Amino acid sequence: MTKMIAQLIEQRFGLPSAAGHDTPAEGELAAILSHRTHRRYTDAPVSEDLMQQVLAAGLSAPAKSDLQQVAILRVENAGIRQAIAELLPSMPWVAQVARFLVVCGDSRRIRRICELRNTPFANDHLDAFLNATTDAALVLQNLIRAASAAGLGACPISVIRNHATRIAELLALPDYVFPLAGLCLGWPSREGFVSLRLPMALTVHVDRYDDTNLAAEVDGYDRRRDARHSIPENDWRQVGRFGKPSLYGWSEDKARQVSVPERQDFGAFIRRQGFKLD
Amino acid sequence: MTKMIAQLIEQRFGLPSAAGHDTPAEGELAAILSHRTHRRYTDAPVSEDLMQQVLAAGLSAPAKSDLQQVAILRVENAGIRQAIAELLPSMPWVAQVARFLVVCGDSRRIRRICELRNTPFANDHLDAFLNATTDAALVLQNLIRAASAAGLGACPISVIRNHATRIAELLALPDYVFPLAGLCLGWPSREGFVSLRLPMALTVHVDRYDDTNLAAEVDGYDRRRDARHSIPENDWRQVGRFGKPSLYGWSEDKARQVSVPERQDFGAFIRRQGFKLD
Repeated sequence: MTKMIAQLIEQRFGLPSAAGHDTPAEGELAAILSHRTHRRYTDAPVSEDLMQQVLAAGLSAPAKSDLQQVAILRVENAGIRQAIAELLPSMPWVAQVARFLVVCGDSRRIRRICELRNTPFANDHLDAFLNATTDAALVLQNLIRAASAAGLGACPISVIRNHATRIAELLALPDYVFPLAGLCLGWPSREGFVSLRLPMALTVHVDRYDDTNLAAEVDGYDRRRDARHSIPENDWRQVGRFGKPSLYGWSEDKARQVSVPERQDFGAFIRRQGFKLD
Repeated sequence: MTKMIAQLIEQRFGLPSAAGHDTPAEGELAAILSHRTHRRYTDAPVSEDLMQQVLAAGLSAPAKSDLQQVAILRVENAGIRQAIAELLPSMPWVAQVARFLVVCGDSRRIRRICELRNTPFANDHLDAFLNATTDAALVLQNLIRAASAAGLGACPISVIRNHATRIAELLALPDYVFPLAGLCLGWPSREGFVSLRLPMALTVHVDRYDDTNLAAEVDGYDRRRDARHSIPENDWRQVGRFGKPSLYGWSEDKARQVSVPERQDFGAFIRRQGFKLD
């Protein structure tokens, strides 16, 4: 690998990477490694021309069996945007960003096509939900890459699923269509930062899943993250319930985050949208 | 948009796009729009150095709440590869391609971290499964883009889920880990082709989901696909059951495909892996 790519891998994982040599780096690979999430934007508009490019590129993702089970809702109406933003008071960028999309899984289109072609839809089970979810996620990631390629900042908003019923009402989502994530698209006003990733010792396995060294690898990761950016004490979660640890790192923060129930009604919402999950 | 991007959008959708002007195209946006799936590969190896770059780039995708609920299984053992290939006799490229991965959703790591940090995991419901699926799909799409940026061809293999129990055995996948898709990575031996996409009239909605024109839009799409590449009569599905239509297009093919039950046991597999889907 080139020196530039080796440096970008070290930046992403906070661990030494192979020594690089001196040939030019491939631009797209470097861009993917340099991914930054942006939550602060200028007031500059994003043109319709650019939206068409980003949407077309996003929809160029592969799709399960070529079924293309995705629907992108463009929130252009100011009242709808405001109503969504009011659901997410901790994320003021949802109200402020130039463009806001809601990326949805869509299992409705293929079911309507079966009616048009007079064939039965014989796959009304968990995998139908999984396939629509996956197609939508592939497009979501491709939209993020396309936006970045165009110089835009992007921020996926999965917390819209905390309000799935209301989002579905606001956007008139019919049966078999569900929101996966919102997506902010705007011109970034700050540089953003590279989010440090878990070591591949935990996320990449050869032939057999093996997380024997989980505790030690997570400790090392907590320390690398803390060295780059400590979580301020003001942001520590549930100190009254769990106390103040010597190191409040990523694992402590994530363990506390998932100790609070969230989206317990999401399964009921998905079933109301018509899905069987057997 | 530039002329080059406008041409690539026309190639992807088979519909006229805005007239382009003459400034240089952005390379990454053009690459995303030019995505091709590759199923034929040379025998050339893919170096470990290149694999490290592609894996690191893939893992640079954003993750829900930074939980990074993905596990990538690298299938390096020839016996395991052969066993997987034998499950998929219609896909000989799975046996032949230089590298083969299985991208998994991983809800195990955060549950083990809760044990390590002595906090309860309070989110054992459908959204836990959805989040791990989504993180894995985001990484899958980023791996495909990274491979393409490096000149590799990639082909996701979702049909491994038809054999989820066996795949989980072969790769020693523990509770709360499940295979989302395989991924072939190799040097392409052919040019590949651009898969025509549904018109944005069906996949992009403004403020309200609206598929009133589904039948007409699908008919137009069927005709555009047929003009670019007709489905050979030898590949028509279930002629005995559904007959020979005047146009055997995408919608006819997909309607017949989903008229046959597949992966009916996938929900049971996911529940055996420990997930509650309430």
